[in-house]
Amino acid sequence: MKTIRVIHGPNLNLLGTREPEIYGSETLADIDGRLAKKAAALSLTLKTFQSNHEGAIVDQIQSVRAHCDGLIINPGAFTHTSVAIRDALLALTCPMVEVHISNVYQRESFRHQSFIGDVVTGRIVGLGSQGYLLALEALAAM
Amino acid sequence: MKTIRVIHGPNLNLLGTREPEIYGSETLADIDGRLAKKAAALSLTLKTFQSNHEGAIVDQIQSVRAHCDGLIINPGAFTHTSVAIRDALLALTCPMVEVHISNVYQRESFRHQSFIGDVVTGRIVGLGSQGYLLALEALAAM
Amino acid sequence: MKTIRVIHGPNLNLLGTREPEIYGSETLADIDGRLAKKAAALSLTLKTFQSNHEGAIVDQIQSVRAHCDGLIINPGAFTHTSVAIRDALLALTCPMVEVHISNVYQRESFRHQSFIGDVVTGRIVGLGSQGYLLALEALAAM
Amino acid sequence: MKTIRVIHGPNLNLLGTREPEIYGSETLADIDGRLAKKAAALSLTLKTFQSNHEGAIVDQIQSVRAHCDGLIINPGAFTHTSVAIRDALLALTCPMVEVHISNVYQRESFRHQSFIGDVVTGRIVGLGSQGYLLALEALAAM
Amino acid sequence: MKTIRVIHGPNLNLLGTREPEIYGSETLADIDGRLAKKAAALSLTLKTFQSNHEGAIVDQIQSVRAHCDGLIINPGAFTHTSVAIRDALLALTCPMVEVHISNVYQRESFRHQSFIGDVVTGRIVGLGSQGYLLALEALAAM
Amino acid sequence: MKTIRVIHGPNLNLLGTREPEIYGSETLADIDGRLAKKAAALSLTLKTFQSNHEGAIVDQIQSVRAHCDGLIINPGAFTHTSVAIRDALLALTCPMVEVHISNVYQRESFRHQSFIGDVVTGRIVGLGSQGYLLALEALAAM
Amino acid sequence: MKTIRVIHGPNLNLLGTREPEIYGSETLADIDGRLAKKAAALSLTLKTFQSNHEGAIVDQIQSVRAHCDGLIINPGAFTHTSVAIRDALLALTCPMVEVHISNVYQRESFRHQSFIGDVVTGRIVGLGSQGYLLALEALAAM
Amino acid sequence: MKTIRVIHGPNLNLLGTREPEIYGSETLADIDGRLAKKAAALSLTLKTFQSNHEGAIVDQIQSVRAHCDGLIINPGAFTHTSVAIRDALLALTCPMVEVHISNVYQRESFRHQSFIGDVVTGRIVGLGSQGYLLALEALAAM
Amino acid sequence: MKTIRVIHGPNLNLLGTREPEIYGSETLADIDGRLAKKAAALSLTLKTFQSNHEGAIVDQIQSVRAHCDGLIINPGAFTHTSVAIRDALLALTCPMVEVHISNVYQRESFRHQSFIGDVVTGRIVGLGSQGYLLALEALAAM
Amino acid sequence: MKTIRVIHGPNLNLLGTREPEIYGSETLADIDGRLAKKAAALSLTLKTFQSNHEGAIVDQIQSVRAHCDGLIINPGAFTHTSVAIRDALLALTCPMVEVHISNVYQRESFRHQSFIGDVVTGRIVGLGSQGYLLALEALAAM
Amino acid sequence: MKTIRVIHGPNLNLLGTREPEIYGSETLADIDGRLAKKAAALSLTLKTFQSNHEGAIVDQIQSVRAHCDGLIINPGAFTHTSVAIRDALLALTCPMVEVHISNVYQRESFRHQSFIGDVVTGRIVGLGSQGYLLALEALAAM
Amino acid sequence: MKTIRVIHGPNLNLLGTREPEIYGSETLADIDGRLAKKAAALSLTLKTFQSNHEGAIVDQIQSVRAHCDGLIINPGAFTHTSVAIRDALLALTCPMVEVHISNVYQRESFRHQSFIGDVVTGRIVGLGSQGYLLALEALAAM
Repeated sequence: MKTIRVIHGPNLNLLGTREPEIYGSETLADIDGRLAKKAAALSLTLKTFQSNHEGAIVDQIQSVRAHCDGLIINPGAFTHTSVAIRDALLALTCPMVEVHISNVYQRESFRHQSFIGDVVTGRIVGLGSQGYLLALEALAAM
Repeated sequence: MKTIRVIHGPNLNLLGTREPEIYGSETLADIDGRLAKKAAALSLTLKTFQSNHEGAIVDQIQSVRAHCDGLIINPGAFTHTSVAIRDALLALTCPMVEVHISNVYQRESFRHQSFIGDVVTGRIVGLGSQGYLLALEALAAM
Repeated sequence: MKTIRVIHGPNLNLLGTREPEIYGSETLADIDGRLAKKAAALSLTLKTFQSNHEGAIVDQIQSVRAHCDGLIINPGAFTHTSVAIRDALLALTCPMVEVHISNVYQRESFRHQSFIGDVVTGRIVGLGSQGYLLALEALAAM
Repeated sequence: MKTIRVIHGPNLNLLGTREPEIYGSETLADIDGRLAKKAAALSLTLKTFQSNHEGAIVDQIQSVRAHCDGLIINPGAFTHTSVAIRDALLALTCPMVEVHISNVYQRESFRHQSFIGDVVTGRIVGLGSQGYLLALEALAAM
Repeated sequence: MKTIRVIHGPNLNLLGTREPEIYGSETLADIDGRLAKKAAALSLTLKTFQSNHEGAIVDQIQSVRAHCDGLIINPGAFTHTSVAIRDALLALTCPMVEVHISNVYQRESFRHQSFIGDVVTGRIVGLGSQGYLLALEALAAM
Repeated sequence: MKTIRVIHGPNLNLLGTREPEIYGSETLADIDGRLAKKAAALSLTLKTFQSNHEGAIVDQIQSVRAHCDGLIINPGAFTHTSVAIRDALLALTCPMVEVHISNVYQRESFRHQSFIGDVVTGRIVGLGSQGYLLALEALAAM
Repeated sequence: MKTIRVIHGPNLNLLGTREPEIYGSETLADIDGRLAKKAAALSLTLKTFQSNHEGAIVDQIQSVRAHCDGLIINPGAFTHTSVAIRDALLALTCPMVEVHISNVYQRESFRHQSFIGDVVTGRIVGLGSQGYLLALEALAAM
Repeated sequence: MKTIRVIHGPNLNLLGTREPEIYGSETLADIDGRLAKKAAALSLTLKTFQSNHEGAIVDQIQSVRAHCDGLIINPGAFTHTSVAIRDALLALTCPMVEVHISNVYQRESFRHQSFIGDVVTGRIVGLGSQGYLLALEALAAM
Repeated sequence: MKTIRVIHGPNLNLLGTREPEIYGSETLADIDGRLAKKAAALSLTLKTFQSNHEGAIVDQIQSVRAHCDGLIINPGAFTHTSVAIRDALLALTCPMVEVHISNVYQRESFRHQSFIGDVVTGRIVGLGSQGYLLALEALAAM
Repeated sequence: MKTIRVIHGPNLNLLGTREPEIYGSETLADIDGRLAKKAAALSLTLKTFQSNHEGAIVDQIQSVRAHCDGLIINPGAFTHTSVAIRDALLALTCPMVEVHISNVYQRESFRHQSFIGDVVTGRIVGLGSQGYLLALEALAAM
Repeated sequence: MKTIRVIHGPNLNLLGTREPEIYGSETLADIDGRLAKKAAALSLTLKTFQSNHEGAIVDQIQSVRAHCDGLIINPGAFTHTSVAIRDALLALTCPMVEVHISNVYQRESFRHQSFIGDVVTGRIVGLGSQGYLLALEALAAM
Repeated sequence: MKTIRVIHGPNLNLLGTREPEIYGSETLADIDGRLAKKAAALSLTLKTFQSNHEGAIVDQIQSVRAHCDGLIINPGAFTHTSVAIRDALLALTCPMVEVHISNVYQRESFRHQSFIGDVVTGRIVGLGSQGYLLALEALAAM
């Protein structure tokens, strides 16, 4: 049975309360619930993690190296500023899908730059929380 | 019954023969076939179109304005050079998903710039031909 | 009797239906009608052309070389991307006026760049469909 | 009866004597005369002003706020350097047309940048002194 | 008894009437009144000056050199364009506080650049007309 | 009774010992003491926090969302590098004042760029530790 | 017997009439005639194609994939704007020589950038119509 | 007898008191005195002018058009910001020498850019007040 | 007896397992062991620290201020993104040597930029784990 | 009988031994031999020169001014760095062809910039040592 | 008796024959003659040197260190490309004047950048060969 | 017995006399002496070379190709300007260490760019003359 890891970056714990016009009203728990349900349907083991700390995300990525068949990561703000997360991802060999809930190309120009985009297998951007489910499906199919 | 349009940009008719290390060995007909099958399963009407002509793609986008509940577009090379396609998409009101088979962020830097990305609802990049199927699913769920 | 050519670029056939907050509610046929009426009043022969195809516009510009006393061109999106139209215009010797219905300087920054502006005699920007009539008047007076 | 203001920026008082290959041989008095004649024909009141002083132009723009139905402004060199004039124009609510006698896009690259272009209603560039008359016509028609 | 000078740049005489959504509804006289009152409470002599003319502001800065214990300056639009004011300020030796009523970082990108910011002692930005009062307090405390 | 939060970013715990020619000789405890005294005088509740950890500052900002009537933040080095703090601040609705002790415009050019400046209500820069007191006053007056 | 394809881009059909000071007075037919003669001398089959349509050039490049031992292409204006032609060329495996009649480095700076130059085997620039003959010779020798 | 005009830009009236480590301790009157003496020795008529107002300098340049055999101009801060002075100089036909007392290349980078340098005949930079005398000599010799 | 501190940045704990073609197969423990041995030979006290957390590294640098005669730091990914570490290093007065195992100039262009390089005494780049030993030797010799 | 000069820039004396995957295995003597043979066939006198010294190449170009009917130059690395060679070439009046053996557009981006390209008549790039022969032919035909 | 050194950079030995529309018809010998005459009149010893070799100019600058009371240098093309000459000049302590015969600001934009301008005492640009004489005078007066 | 070559670039022959605050007071002979001593201790043959001529350094690098087991190079000013030296180094196959005595990152920004850094094995920067000794040690250990 394959194990899929999900990592949510900074401020995503505020989902549902922060800027709902951009991020929608679902909470992170709602999303993790829908992901868990879909993972079960696809016979996948799922483990989720959220942190506002870049270092904790690096630690987490390192820790999954031995036990990971696919990674879903929404690096949030760290997308645009963290070489450390990039380097941690470079040490993974499983397929990785980067997810952004909002369409970052409709926002500030610094959000168009990414330290992660060329390191992951693929990106799903702007499709709301459904993006996570599609990512799960993509990893299941690989 | 909802109608979904699929538009493939220039050189995508070569899929399966051109640069297989980047684009894989599936042909465009293979992909359209898988899309048709999934559309049927989702009770969606699907119409596909491919052209190497920017103007023909603009014409096509304009023609679907009245009869379109969702658009999947892989603008290919025109992603990086066509304001005309951008403007045509701006005249659509249905949800739109942009798909790129390869991870454009792993290629030449001019492929990181897009005239389309902030106009569509969302983007799926680097997940191979499966990206089209995920886009269809996303549109079905909206 | 002088002959004036009018060339409308991509998506201008959507005028009146596309983004009316930017382009107004007049259709292209309305504008061509007003232009025809004014041309008659100024004893000018007028021929209009619209296309979404860059190549067709290049063909058209080439074809008018021998029979043109003045050109009005709204290159639309091709303003910002077409060196081919620039080169075709460079082969004309009659006066040319570039017209933009909206004020491009109030829009995306890529619309501030032009491959056409230094090739034409003059530009009229942001004065709505009236810009075409003023252009006609300007050419008549030259 | 509508009042139209005309503001000429620095060095335009030299028209007819300065760089005639760029600006033609008409003097500013000639242009103002033609404008006055056309304004009368259109039943408009016209007041013109010229200064080489940025501050005097700002003062003038401020002073017309209450009594202005349309503004024609050729900011000359200040087009490229004056945020103060931009700010003064932002405080006007009447339609404004910016006029440039020469085609600034055929000249030094710093003349392609403007602090004014996105603040006015529209721009007429490169059509010689006729540009002022067209601007008057445009304002009359609004 | 210390003397504090206050210099208001271009278009600040329009305060209360221009773009109230950005600058509020207080007039410059209101602000000067509040400043005078606070200066009295702090036992400071206060002299205020406003001009739309860069040269007049340079003249004024030069004239205060001998009799100034602190300068409050809101250079308005000249912040972004005037090296002459920068040079005049460089010839002062008293503490200087630059005030901007609006948050310039929420406006056009050219307003993020400054020829003044590294020449003054400090800057207070975006705190409305209260910024002037805080500047006065800061100078009193130095 | 209003509650004001104060957040000090990285290395500010070294105040008084680090680079005194830039930051002065007051310690952070001295500043917090002066702030507490002034808050009491203004009948405000004050809570202060310092961390060298970006994630801890994000956590702290998130935690104050429900109980905060005003925020004073000196993001220190994170001003120039942290989108995560920017995003956390975007989720606050109370007024916010950013304080910098030194004049960042007199230092390295990367200190002129900010991810925070357009998110806060206002900024006070270069006025030493007094900047905090002025910020407190500003928040009290809102 | 080897087959060499020649593709002429937009506006090259005007050769001999357009801007003779840059492009000389030979027509495209003249050049094709000289090429045919030289091809015969070298025992090469030669097929030439000209279009002002980017899409038609892409179609043409795709169509020659199976039957081409060498390609001579003068992409004209598309050199600087077409990623689609670049992508079509990437799907060819035969040697390719890019020819420019004029020295593009003596012209507008946008003509110094190319989407084609690193995709072809080599480039011959500025040697007039003779450049085509040299290209033919080069391909014959490979 | 030839007439030479000397124009001193903003803040040069402070010479001898402002930043003596950059500009030396001579006053502008001292320099004008030395210039007058040398002009007399060279049998030249000399007229000098100083202003902190860009518009006044433009007016002055315009006024000398008919009666000027050579111009010495130190545009000071306006070197880097004034297109209006550039345009006024373009209307002169006599030789012009630009003088800067300090070596502007040893100062802030914005002082390395000039709107004047390519309009004048020559420039003398960094040779102190002697630069004016050398300029006078250069004009006398032309 | 002098004390030397060694700080290893993010992902360096993966040495020997991550991207061995870039970083070699030695583990961090191996390197620390070799360093300890050499320190003993040089009669130096050595303390090493590794963290994936920028804040923890800032804390660590601050804590060594009183007891440090030399610092060896490999900031890893933080080299390119951390102003906070830069600021912490600015508060140290002992000599500092920055070490990079790989030649960062042969990698992505963002790795060529550094927030640390001008703050340390010197840098040793691209000499593998031997770089640490050379750094130790350099500090011993100072 | 026409005289053609050939100048080879730095490191071209290593041809055949240096980076054969880029430059091929022919030596410079081989190339000069083939050139001499072709020159004889075309009844041209040929003189060749190679140096690693920019100054020696400048000297050589100067020395050929009186006795040169055509120049073939491969400036090698100096293409991208030498204004002195550019200036020396500007003093020649004979036709000049620049040759590069490798396709510089497939290499480091600094090799895409040239100080020579707009000074010569034409360029032949990427066609290996055959480029020299084609250049000879081109000069013979002029 | 003071010794003044004059160093002429590459291609200046061609003066009088190369591009006379830019550099005039005087030869370098003419200029050196006029300089020698003026030096004698000013009781200065003068030694001149010209080379097309950057290294020879560096050698020459180094050799004059002990016996030089003033340096006149026209670095020609090396102005824009030589850090080595910059470094050699940095080792001199006598006053230095840089001379350019033509107005480099009216030529290619790369000629506007200089590695020398902030190292010398002053610059004289665009005043023809007279610039050397003025430089001599300036050095004599120091 | 391994042979190590040492190449010193321009102006390094001035060491000990030029800018001692940057480069220290040791002469090049001192450094070469210390290197020779250390080489002997390590049983290495050492040959050193210094030149102010780029071409001579290229010649030297070429000449050592057959007899070199390691290269130490301090390219001095050529680091930032010489592609020719880069190309010569590319033809070497032995390990190479680049040494800079001063910390170039604390100096002018053009010294932060390098044409050499990605071609050598490693770099040692800012550690004074000791950098050479460490480089020797590094090469000995390879």
